[in-house]
Amino acid sequence: MPLVEGRTGLEVILAPRCWELLASGRVGRLGYIHDGGPEIVPVNYQVDDETIVFRTDPGTKLVAVRRNTAVAFEIDHTEPADETGWSVLVKGVAERVTDAREVSRLDGLGLRPWVTGDKETWIRIRPDSVSGRAVYHFGEAQEDARSETD
Amino acid sequence: MPLVEGRTGLEVILAPRCWELLASGRVGRLGYIHDGGPEIVPVNYQVDDETIVFRTDPGTKLVAVRRNTAVAFEIDHTEPADETGWSVLVKGVAERVTDAREVSRLDGLGLRPWVTGDKETWIRIRPDSVSGRAVYHFGEAQEDARSETD
Repeated sequence: MPLVEGRTGLEVILAPRCWELLASGRVGRLGYIHDGGPEIVPVNYQVDDETIVFRTDPGTKLVAVRRNTAVAFEIDHTEPADETGWSVLVKGVAERVTDAREVSRLDGLGLRPWVTGDKETWIRIRPDSVSGRAVYHFGEAQEDARSETD
Repeated sequence: MPLVEGRTGLEVILAPRCWELLASGRVGRLGYIHDGGPEIVPVNYQVDDETIVFRTDPGTKLVAVRRNTAVAFEIDHTEPADETGWSVLVKGVAERVTDAREVSRLDGLGLRPWVTGDKETWIRIRPDSVSGRAVYHFGEAQEDARSETD
């Protein structure tokens, strides 16, 4: 039986499945704080040993990382037609990958940035927490889904 | 000819088009600060007179709004197959809609929350800025796209 969060009625996605979903994605959203407010930017990412890695070049994203601020990373998928969806949120601290051997290994992962520019810097998010929520049902459909999975 | 951001090479989406994209979407991502770090959660939203409105119920999202912190709201679309995509970011301040007549009007907009729970509170994001970026091309495809649109 799926775990359901009491406050929202959302189904809880456990960490192993969160990592499967993260591994199957290509574009996620980096959340960071800039000038006292939150920012959200899409990034082309890859999972590397239960961390999130992506490339960047000098700019706002990198400034945030240099200051070692907390970051969030989110992926989601929605099916508007049947009102289902899920999301996974990684919270942690981002760091620049500076070790040359490690940079070389990451360069070999095959992650191409879609955006032009050198994108010479690798950033790694080390998660403090990974959580996921799913909406599989709404209203009547919810009852159906529950009786099938009970 | 499209406007291109120098640092990233991304095409700039002007505000009127950003609002068209926002108006055509249903699910976006709310970014806010909680315990000193950024959070990102999907919300089912609607555009109302160049503001973003969505429903919520007592929980983290609402706590952030009560404190009148700055928020971000993001939508995006990517086509992994041809490596194109766009994103729109709204930055502003969120507020609870407390005026009864206004709540009644928003209730009539037809925005159904996907998630169970009363979701009795309307939140409105008043934008300080709206910006959009698009990646329409990568590598060789970029050259083709440019010659067609020049």
